[in-house]
Amino acid sequence: MFWQDHESAVNESSKSSSKVYVLSLCMGSFLFLLMIAHPVWAGQGGSPQGHTDPFASIILALTGILIAAALGRGLAMKLNQPAVLGELVIGVVIGNVGYWLAEPVFVLIMYQTDMGALVKQAWTTGASLPETFSRVFDTEGLVSNSPIARLGDALSGPQAFMLVNIGAAFWMFSNLGVLLLLFLVGLESSPEEMARVGGQSAAVAVVGVVLPFTLGFLVALLFLPEASTVQHAFVGATLCATSVGITARLFTDMKRVDMPEAKVILGAAVIDDILGLVVLAVVIGLVQTGRIILSDLAITFFNAAAFLAVVLFFGQRCVRAAVPVFRFLDESNIKLIYPLCLCFFLAWAANIAGLAAIVGAFAAGLILSDRMFGSETPGSSVTQAMRPLGAVFSPIFFVVMGMQVNLETFASVEALGLAVALTLVGVAGKFVAGYAVRSGIDRATIGLGMVPRGEVGLIFASVGKGLGVLDEATFSAVVMTVVLTTFIAPLALRYRLRRSAVS
Amino acid sequence: MFWQDHESAVNESSKSSSKVYVLSLCMGSFLFLLMIAHPVWAGQGGSPQGHTDPFASIILALTGILIAAALGRGLAMKLNQPAVLGELVIGVVIGNVGYWLAEPVFVLIMYQTDMGALVKQAWTTGASLPETFSRVFDTEGLVSNSPIARLGDALSGPQAFMLVNIGAAFWMFSNLGVLLLLFLVGLESSPEEMARVGGQSAAVAVVGVVLPFTLGFLVALLFLPEASTVQHAFVGATLCATSVGITARLFTDMKRVDMPEAKVILGAAVIDDILGLVVLAVVIGLVQTGRIILSDLAITFFNAAAFLAVVLFFGQRCVRAAVPVFRFLDESNIKLIYPLCLCFFLAWAANIAGLAAIVGAFAAGLILSDRMFGSETPGSSVTQAMRPLGAVFSPIFFVVMGMQVNLETFASVEALGLAVALTLVGVAGKFVAGYAVRSGIDRATIGLGMVPRGEVGLIFASVGKGLGVLDEATFSAVVMTVVLTTFIAPLALRYRLRRSAVS
Repeated sequence: MFWQDHESAVNESSKSSSKVYVLSLCMGSFLFLLMIAHPVWAGQGGSPQGHTDPFASIILALTGILIAAALGRGLAMKLNQPAVLGELVIGVVIGNVGYWLAEPVFVLIMYQTDMGALVKQAWTTGASLPETFSRVFDTEGLVSNSPIARLGDALSGPQAFMLVNIGAAFWMFSNLGVLLLLFLVGLESSPEEMARVGGQSAAVAVVGVVLPFTLGFLVALLFLPEASTVQHAFVGATLCATSVGITARLFTDMKRVDMPEAKVILGAAVIDDILGLVVLAVVIGLVQTGRIILSDLAITFFNAAAFLAVVLFFGQRCVRAAVPVFRFLDESNIKLIYPLCLCFFLAWAANIAGLAAIVGAFAAGLILSDRMFGSETPGSSVTQAMRPLGAVFSPIFFVVMGMQVNLETFASVEALGLAVALTLVGVAGKFVAGYAVRSGIDRATIGLGMVPRGEVGLIFASVGKGLGVLDEATFSAVVMTVVLTTFIAPLALRYRLRRSAVS
Repeated sequence: MFWQDHESAVNESSKSSSKVYVLSLCMGSFLFLLMIAHPVWAGQGGSPQGHTDPFASIILALTGILIAAALGRGLAMKLNQPAVLGELVIGVVIGNVGYWLAEPVFVLIMYQTDMGALVKQAWTTGASLPETFSRVFDTEGLVSNSPIARLGDALSGPQAFMLVNIGAAFWMFSNLGVLLLLFLVGLESSPEEMARVGGQSAAVAVVGVVLPFTLGFLVALLFLPEASTVQHAFVGATLCATSVGITARLFTDMKRVDMPEAKVILGAAVIDDILGLVVLAVVIGLVQTGRIILSDLAITFFNAAAFLAVVLFFGQRCVRAAVPVFRFLDESNIKLIYPLCLCFFLAWAANIAGLAAIVGAFAAGLILSDRMFGSETPGSSVTQAMRPLGAVFSPIFFVVMGMQVNLETFASVEALGLAVALTLVGVAGKFVAGYAVRSGIDRATIGLGMVPRGEVGLIFASVGKGLGVLDEATFSAVVMTVVLTTFIAPLALRYRLRRSAVS
């Protein structure tokens, strides 16, 4: 009914005339301009005695993002490309145009992580924001056009507080979006199905961590011979990440979540999250102390594994037991509020266990099923109740992800060689991992599904930068690799899925 | 299917055994404790190398609010009370228990407005937060248990940044919730229907502003003889406000949005927003300059009236013209994304025109209709697509509204007399306004529907406090009046609606 019908909508939409094209482009540009010009509007607007609601600028920006996402989806579908790619690309386009125009709101969204860290530090230390800013960044020899200078401008203008509010809102809504997406994907599966493919998922995950790590290590050794072993290891570690959001969304868009390949990928992504955690812990331990503290490592691993084990073995029973409670609380909303609470609660619990919040959201979807509610419960199905929420918020995640890709990174020639090499081994390593499964299911699909690094790769890279292990050029190369794998994967996977559907 | 089925669910839920009662209470208490204890958890949790996502604490708090809202709804239904009242009451209970325990997150939510203003000022002036705090509040002779001292503690603890994030998230989600609620209510009506009751709405609105203002002025004159005329006028102005959220929600819960009485109330609330704007402008003008600047007043009035006129006369045509654009963009989501964008956009535009954002959201719902999309469009109806969003977010608004009622206010004996008198004339003034309509529709229902002051009354009161017109005791009295009218209205209206349904 909603966003899962992209495939069928493609045929119908070819009816649309060129007049509509022009109209939509005009409207898109208009709203884009509006969004850009919007600090001006907000500054002028509002009669002095009227309601001047700071939420107003947030909802205008939200409107812009929702329209941008719809435009991206629409254009991608016209070009026969995956909808998620359209959202990412439109994000990259508006994010970078806005950044080049030095529009503060785009600068803040592109450097959301830095913004958050800065504000947090200002808060914690009790110092003022300008003070914190010059303490964190070397503002002495700052080039006026550098990202840091732009971030500083964006944070200190008269509209800064409103812009930070918008940045925070985007951060919240996109986080909500990716949780809902993974929850909806999890709903299409069950712990039993996941257990059935568990062995294969584990094989894919292990090969998909060992191989990219080794290859990444070797590439780093080759390109950065004078760097330390720890640095080589960190580059390798970055290639281990798997961002399952893109793959999950692509399978959802193409209505293939039911495929065994999809289950294997999702299982492997969950196991990957544990393995990635361990790899990151090892590498960070090496950086900080020069050695590996086994007890810390064991705790990290144990926490994550225990969370998954408890949820998968006892989860369904607990969830079923709590149904009568929610039925008592509010039966009419039970298929909406209860699943949502479960999703949020397990996302939080997963995070406490050291895993990504999306792993918890996926697990919540996994252990929940419509059967638990009984046939007499009002509302058709959990998926149907939750889908509008996912359809509104998950595109925000992908547009914002696109908006955080700074294309200037690709201007670094010295990083380009390393980036290309890393991308090649990054794709190859994960692709080969797909062949760790038994024959009978499409190994190429699995391999391609594991390729995108997405936000997980970016987190790894920014940890490395924060620790001082990755210098500016290496960091750029790693970010390029993350971006390239993220964009290659949906294209290739879509091609593969369409071909396998024909044959 | 979702939250509109409260009435029918009442009968079914009486099946639930006492065991379920106990279970639910246990679970409620457990989750409540969890929420309270949660800064501790968040502080301990997360292995040092894991994903430590600041979003995790937000989603845990969100889970708490969603469960609290469901508990409130459930208990209210068991006691045969309106669901919205249950959400408000549970908000008051957890908000005040948390506040008495001096739990920072509850303090921040209760003083959300002050928190926002403080952070904004710190940002704008470039000063540090502690500095701004002692500049805004007189921290010299601060009693350690006063609200300000608690707010200061909450803002400066080690978890402060995370708590402010939670506060900001609640602010965003509750704002989103009330917009979605008014949009959904607007969807049930059309500009033609509103025009038909326009004259009656105008009569109700005018009487409902003039009468409470006059009565409030007289009560203030009687109770505060030594205060200035401006102060008397400000107290009167506060009684003019109408918060349509509660009434709208109650009609929705009881499936009575179609009643002519509901249309008259909604129309009167919109006109009230303009009149309230003018009254507030006049009184603020008197406070600041001692006289009324007619040109400013004319601009204020013109902006608001022009917005409504443009939307109501040209809105439907524009909205229909844009349908093909969105059909081109993303047909499969058209009944979800387009309405949402329209709702957000008009809410922003209304705010720019000086009106409340919810007036814009309501207008968006008014001008949109399912007919515009044609019968071949996928998705059943706009209402059905949007309802899950409303069902998730609008209860957050009412719980948070409850959490911002500080029961300590009622401990002020000197304010109590004034509060009771103001409440009496506040209820009477709006109730009598209902009798401004022609016979044939239920005047008492209309009068009761206009009674709640809700967040609009609180905004008026806090403006008065900010300007120094309302002293602490008068402010407390006005806040009490707002709270009392807000709680009386749904009780009385529910009783009236049930009676009129029987006869």
